[in-house]
Amino acid sequence: MPRKPKKTKPSGKIRIIPLGGLGEIGKNMTVIEYEDEMIAIDCGLGFPDEDMPGIDLVIPDFSYLEANKHRLKGLFLTHGHEDHVGAVPYLLQTVNPPLYGTPLTLGIIKNKLSEHSLPEKPNLCTVNAGDRVKVGAIEVEFIHVNHSIADACALAIHTPLGTVVHTGDFKLDTTPIDGDMMDIVRLGELGRKGVLMLLCESTNAERPGHTPSERNVGESLEYIFTTHRKKRIIIATFSSNVHRVQQIIDTSARHGRKVAITGRSMLNIVSAAIELGYMKVPAGVLIDLNEIKRFKPGELTVVTTGSQGEPMSALYRMAFSDHAQVTLDQNDLVVLSASAIPGNEKTVGRVINELSKKEVEVLHDALVEVHVSGHACQEELKLVHALTKPKYFMPIHGESRHLTAARDLAQHMGIAHKDIFLSEIGKVLEIDASGARFAGEVPAGKILVDGYGIGNVGNIVLRDRRHLAQDGMLVVVATVDPEGKFLLSGPDIVSRGFVYVREAEDLMDEARRVAADALQVALNRRGSIDRMLLKKSVKDDLTKFLYAKTKRKPMILPVIMDV
Amino acid sequence: MPRKPKKTKPSGKIRIIPLGGLGEIGKNMTVIEYEDEMIAIDCGLGFPDEDMPGIDLVIPDFSYLEANKHRLKGLFLTHGHEDHVGAVPYLLQTVNPPLYGTPLTLGIIKNKLSEHSLPEKPNLCTVNAGDRVKVGAIEVEFIHVNHSIADACALAIHTPLGTVVHTGDFKLDTTPIDGDMMDIVRLGELGRKGVLMLLCESTNAERPGHTPSERNVGESLEYIFTTHRKKRIIIATFSSNVHRVQQIIDTSARHGRKVAITGRSMLNIVSAAIELGYMKVPAGVLIDLNEIKRFKPGELTVVTTGSQGEPMSALYRMAFSDHAQVTLDQNDLVVLSASAIPGNEKTVGRVINELSKKEVEVLHDALVEVHVSGHACQEELKLVHALTKPKYFMPIHGESRHLTAARDLAQHMGIAHKDIFLSEIGKVLEIDASGARFAGEVPAGKILVDGYGIGNVGNIVLRDRRHLAQDGMLVVVATVDPEGKFLLSGPDIVSRGFVYVREAEDLMDEARRVAADALQVALNRRGSIDRMLLKKSVKDDLTKFLYAKTKRKPMILPVIMDV
Repeated sequence: MPRKPKKTKPSGKIRIIPLGGLGEIGKNMTVIEYEDEMIAIDCGLGFPDEDMPGIDLVIPDFSYLEANKHRLKGLFLTHGHEDHVGAVPYLLQTVNPPLYGTPLTLGIIKNKLSEHSLPEKPNLCTVNAGDRVKVGAIEVEFIHVNHSIADACALAIHTPLGTVVHTGDFKLDTTPIDGDMMDIVRLGELGRKGVLMLLCESTNAERPGHTPSERNVGESLEYIFTTHRKKRIIIATFSSNVHRVQQIIDTSARHGRKVAITGRSMLNIVSAAIELGYMKVPAGVLIDLNEIKRFKPGELTVVTTGSQGEPMSALYRMAFSDHAQVTLDQNDLVVLSASAIPGNEKTVGRVINELSKKEVEVLHDALVEVHVSGHACQEELKLVHALTKPKYFMPIHGESRHLTAARDLAQHMGIAHKDIFLSEIGKVLEIDASGARFAGEVPAGKILVDGYGIGNVGNIVLRDRRHLAQDGMLVVVATVDPEGKFLLSGPDIVSRGFVYVREAEDLMDEARRVAADALQVALNRRGSIDRMLLKKSVKDDLTKFLYAKTKRKPMILPVIMDV
Repeated sequence: MPRKPKKTKPSGKIRIIPLGGLGEIGKNMTVIEYEDEMIAIDCGLGFPDEDMPGIDLVIPDFSYLEANKHRLKGLFLTHGHEDHVGAVPYLLQTVNPPLYGTPLTLGIIKNKLSEHSLPEKPNLCTVNAGDRVKVGAIEVEFIHVNHSIADACALAIHTPLGTVVHTGDFKLDTTPIDGDMMDIVRLGELGRKGVLMLLCESTNAERPGHTPSERNVGESLEYIFTTHRKKRIIIATFSSNVHRVQQIIDTSARHGRKVAITGRSMLNIVSAAIELGYMKVPAGVLIDLNEIKRFKPGELTVVTTGSQGEPMSALYRMAFSDHAQVTLDQNDLVVLSASAIPGNEKTVGRVINELSKKEVEVLHDALVEVHVSGHACQEELKLVHALTKPKYFMPIHGESRHLTAARDLAQHMGIAHKDIFLSEIGKVLEIDASGARFAGEVPAGKILVDGYGIGNVGNIVLRDRRHLAQDGMLVVVATVDPEGKFLLSGPDIVSRGFVYVREAEDLMDEARRVAADALQVALNRRGSIDRMLLKKSVKDDLTKFLYAKTKRKPMILPVIMDV
């Protein structure tokens, strides 16, 4: 009897390197390498914290990818949300891998890329859930999941060493709007064959239970439309939530209402979704916003951006009487079909207050179930564990609190503490046949985007902006003779953001004297001029004087000119 | 038979003038006048919005009180929270009425006043719930209510024209910690006699149902202590919530734990509360924070400030490893016994994340009922309406959304639309025998306090601070000859908060050339120098140049010196 060939031990090394999305919300990006080959998953942007004044966007530090671009075989995109694809145009400035994604995801990216000038033509490769893409020894399989945007996928990354499952963002919706439940069967099949590593999103890992179905929102809408037959209904939601917008359109059509769309991103995504077949609009329901005056309030629904109270959004402009076509009054009902993203509570509150002043009725998610999360709660996370039964586990997509909650849940599901890896951006996790371990770091961080410039707003610039915002600044200008012995003119003082100068003339006069004295003493003291010491002396004396008088510490900028 | 004397129609005029707390959260203050006599109720402070960089506090505009100080008979304080008494030290700089309040309220104020230098000795008059204070024709009655601070009162302001009820802040707690339920009987008696006007707080007017009892928190604490016998328990809460702290102490004592207190305001209020008898501590339970190393984790509770994630608070310093006596690790449980005040969600989140990184277990109000509101929900508001049956109604203490919700609720309770007055700060409501109506306005607004200065940070200073924060600034300095024909030196450019200059030398060089060209052209163009035009020309050209290069608009400050 021939001997059964001995099963060879799987070989090679996998490296998993998060470049964003761990210890933070947003800017999600993960690099996975098998031996010399490398793929990246997602390329999202983050939003600036309140201690980053003037910053427009935050993107991942791409230097590791730039240094290894010859090894990068593809960028695989799980879904079209900004925090997963928003930084793609910035990556493409220096690295141009093939982009793989489902039709809606790539449709959104195409739209986005058209607003940027790129050095090379992008290479967009459309795939569908169930497809497998082979790049060298790595094969990436797209698996359908439910989320608050259509066409979202998890990924199974098959390598000779084993399979890594990356969930993307997901929830389990047994009654989704597009008819397809998340493909948990495929996850179960992968689990039976053996999953080496599970990278699972953690956004709602602190929340017990199940995330409600998107269909619940439809039921709330039905109730709202039934009880507000006479009013015009304005609904603000996330433009990317194609299914939400579909439900609003369907409910409107059922109630004999026309639907008008406003807000640039809402118009963009709705037209892309209709074109790609992700949204179906009954004939004659959609009207142009300019046509709304032809209809009575009870015959109209307006779908708008601005659910986060964003100051330039359509809803904000309506609330503050600054929208060309929509004027709100007591015949309007505004529905905020979204929850406030942490940090946005106050801006959302401001819009609600302004609407209340106009006698507009407002419904939001604290009053009616007009929003459901797109992220898995604990029971769904447990289900994914139970299906995939991974050998190793790494929570992704969350702040520390979410990652540790996901870690605790994984332990509860039976994964040994030593097989769970709480990672950080830039930290390399290495897996081979003999085990898994952290092994060094690569460059990673936050790149702050302000205007066109990338990367030139760092800590010093931000620190100065915060200082300027806190107490304003004073410029002290004086001219000295070339030998630095005499004050030829000045000191003049210009201040901004410190005190209202017209009401503080005495203070400014005194400040000028303090600066003049400091200069004079410093000039008298030494034969040859020492600019640095001259400036320091003005700065120190003035800081002390102003703090004693006002308890404020404005930035002081001495400028010494010579002629 | 002698004729019964005809009941004379009540006479005189009441004026109700909110100076704060309407259309905003905080800085609560209401003026009530009967004929020539005037009282004020509360004198609170507010906190700056995110568009008020550098501002420490917001207080009411006192100019109406200052102009009428001879008529002001007293300031009546409902309870000791900052948003009701915090601005008292600022008022006392210019107006010094007798201050009436319960022992704890005045105890807190005394503490506060000791940190300010006052022009005159304050006149503190202690009263107790049930007391009546007569000032001229006005008599003010203190009525016990439940709230998240002990010793809180509603006020009944009796005038010859009728009674005005001002609820202060309240909730109805049938099982309060100090044993006394809100005195709804007295409110009912007043209602039977006839209440002319109800001024009712509106903070929770959007929330259906009842606010849970403070005792629920005690039950949660009992559960938490029972399930965490081995851990040290650190509990952060509002220092003014004397009953909450009492429950923490009681639960600790029952579980054989010592209690240490940290945080300046917590130490202040706890010692005042113990001294005044509002808190009872079993012998031997309180220990000094320096003694904690003598005890095992399971033998200790630490009560701390910082439940809002305030950057200088004790909890924040513990989380960021910056607290001298308390070092946190996996043997600690932190309980956030508070909910995040809108706007504080992110700072609270930051503390939770930092604690998670240290493997500290964290419980907060989304996980366990470790906090209850201090404000009445809809059913309690309805009860107060049903008891007082007021003729007129004015909602107070809330943003527009809360005030309109309170208005709708009053209509639901049967008050006619015309008898409900949605007011604003500074708006005068006049009531006499023939009815009630708005009648003019008095000065009212927000005074921004930054450091010592009051009132000299206005819109221009704030606008400059916001501009500086957004994109930083450039100072352009040049010296010209006295006749203004030649450039003698410069232009030099100094920038802060714009770009990182060392990485943008080319840009700064170009900017200097642009400024030099602009100056040269302007100098050549005219015979005699026109400073304003010279500056404008530099500013315009540089703004255009920098925006085209960077898409940023820093503040540009040209300074032209002559010798």
